[in-house]
Amino acid sequence: MTESPELYINEEVVRRNIEKMSRKALHYGMQLRPHFKTHQCAEVASWFGDHHISRCAVSSLKMAWYFARHGWKDILIAFPLIPAQAEEYNRLAQQVSLTLFLSDPNSLRFFSMIRQPVKVMVEIDTGHHRTGIGVWEEEKIWQVVQHLQQNQFIEFGGFAVHAGETYHCSGESAVGEALARNLQHIKKLKARYPGACVSYGDTPSLSLGADFEGIDEARPGNFVFYDLMQLNLGACDPEEIALHLLCPVVASYPQRKQVVIHGGAVHLSKEYLSINGGEPVYGHVVAANHAYAENMPAGIKETMEVIALSQEHGIIRATHGQAQQILPGQSLPVIPVHSCLAASQFNYYREMKTRRIIPKMSL
Amino acid sequence: MTESPELYINEEVVRRNIEKMSRKALHYGMQLRPHFKTHQCAEVASWFGDHHISRCAVSSLKMAWYFARHGWKDILIAFPLIPAQAEEYNRLAQQVSLTLFLSDPNSLRFFSMIRQPVKVMVEIDTGHHRTGIGVWEEEKIWQVVQHLQQNQFIEFGGFAVHAGETYHCSGESAVGEALARNLQHIKKLKARYPGACVSYGDTPSLSLGADFEGIDEARPGNFVFYDLMQLNLGACDPEEIALHLLCPVVASYPQRKQVVIHGGAVHLSKEYLSINGGEPVYGHVVAANHAYAENMPAGIKETMEVIALSQEHGIIRATHGQAQQILPGQSLPVIPVHSCLAASQFNYYREMKTRRIIPKMSL
Repeated sequence: MTESPELYINEEVVRRNIEKMSRKALHYGMQLRPHFKTHQCAEVASWFGDHHISRCAVSSLKMAWYFARHGWKDILIAFPLIPAQAEEYNRLAQQVSLTLFLSDPNSLRFFSMIRQPVKVMVEIDTGHHRTGIGVWEEEKIWQVVQHLQQNQFIEFGGFAVHAGETYHCSGESAVGEALARNLQHIKKLKARYPGACVSYGDTPSLSLGADFEGIDEARPGNFVFYDLMQLNLGACDPEEIALHLLCPVVASYPQRKQVVIHGGAVHLSKEYLSINGGEPVYGHVVAANHAYAENMPAGIKETMEVIALSQEHGIIRATHGQAQQILPGQSLPVIPVHSCLAASQFNYYREMKTRRIIPKMSL
Repeated sequence: MTESPELYINEEVVRRNIEKMSRKALHYGMQLRPHFKTHQCAEVASWFGDHHISRCAVSSLKMAWYFARHGWKDILIAFPLIPAQAEEYNRLAQQVSLTLFLSDPNSLRFFSMIRQPVKVMVEIDTGHHRTGIGVWEEEKIWQVVQHLQQNQFIEFGGFAVHAGETYHCSGESAVGEALARNLQHIKKLKARYPGACVSYGDTPSLSLGADFEGIDEARPGNFVFYDLMQLNLGACDPEEIALHLLCPVVASYPQRKQVVIHGGAVHLSKEYLSINGGEPVYGHVVAANHAYAENMPAGIKETMEVIALSQEHGIIRATHGQAQQILPGQSLPVIPVHSCLAASQFNYYREMKTRRIIPKMSL
């Protein structure tokens, strides 16, 4: 019986996902710089060592310090530089090879506070419209690159693209089209800046793509665990999903065809999928034949959906028969919509087969 | 300048909210049992001491232990009992007066594991359909109460209702109607079980209601901080909102009329408001004349909306002029949609006026 919701990872599956992505990067001549914001875990990070991966990306200064303390020496903070963190960048750059993002030319003036060698990548917006200088703003990019090259402490590290638009794609072919569009942009960029490194992010593109011409560095994160969102995009197979939340059942209501678990917004996050504009789904309870379903009543032959979350409660849609079989005292394995957000809610994972605790970064 | 997103609370406003709710409970003859899942903070809890409040509600065993360690002696775990936690309930009940929820008759059999005196409230579903025995299932309620009264360690503690449906109400009058319906149910319940305590939850009802006949104990939580959701419901005034997230600006894009902050799903949560079916809003950046806007450029005269979140990024819709004024190096105060979920993402608050750190429960 489970006392509280706990996050389980399957080491074997995680290692397989890491191996597959490492081989793919190698095959296409890209350096892999995995994004560690997904797992935020020194041990999971160490599993990349088998594939001679020595560089990583993180999404905050705090995460950069965590991985620096755990021996990582080549760290990219893949998030727009924060002016107030300048002194911290100086401190960190004494210990590791640090790369920062320049995402807005207005931040250039803060480089006068940098007194340690750092690399700076110019973040380029190729259509996602989150952060970065528009790839169409050629003059602005040129000025920024010139400016960076004038600073004695700064090495221009090339260009970074995050194809976050793929998360909103309707499926594999749309992901492929987004990648193809971005490769066109990258081709022009490389023609203008020969030899500049291009770093490219996002798990869907890297999982599904079969042409990465012009990309020097791959920066996927989510692929270590995958999740429902990636499954829905076609970026992974069900057996590649390496993370689930094991939740105590706390009540079942056959008449309204629902089961309630301890497993709410503070565990799964409120990220949802709305397939074909349907009602939001916050997670899937796997069926009894699933590898992660060791304690599931054998009668649960169908996936069930988490259809509502409050702070600590999760509501699962079930049939009358399922709700009669699933009772307080049992536990249900739930695959989250977005494993990065679920993982960030916990201080540790349990390994699925050994049940040992794997500590991770905490809040 | 702010290095990282930090959660600020305004002690003066929190104390005022606590005083107002305490007076209201007293006025209507209800005992106040504040729900501490909102703040999860021993110091904020201690501010209830001025009003002689000695009981509290929490939503997990972990939270119960936290407040027990901080001197609280009368604790209700306002969440369906979890069978696997039976031994922990025994341990906790040695230290405090512990009350549990019975929300599904299938959990009755686990009371055989209880060997310390505990109170048990029967959770009643009056229409929210999250957890609890349906108020219409009169026979089932009767059987459960009889069963509880046969256990030597258990004291029947009455009935608990959570009117969570008010969070989906369209405004003040709908909240009032939901409360009135529930009071009718409570009236019948009290007729059948004279003398049984009725505990009633939810901040909207307790903030807006003016008739609480039959309710013995009030169990609101969110009112200490309030948030955009409560403001939208009419449950609070803008100056009663006591919490905001101060976020570093990391990029601004006047041409696409957006500003980007460090402040994402891991800080604000992905809870959103969709007013009149419009696009989701994840938070409000307050205008320069707001009490929490001390560092805002004076030109920011209008509230701005957070319209998208990724893990660490928040995207704010601005005018071209606003985006020209708001630059990296500045910070923006953001009021979250749901303060409970935002608060659960942090280990501490900063007090707004003194900037001192107020520790809270961590993950």
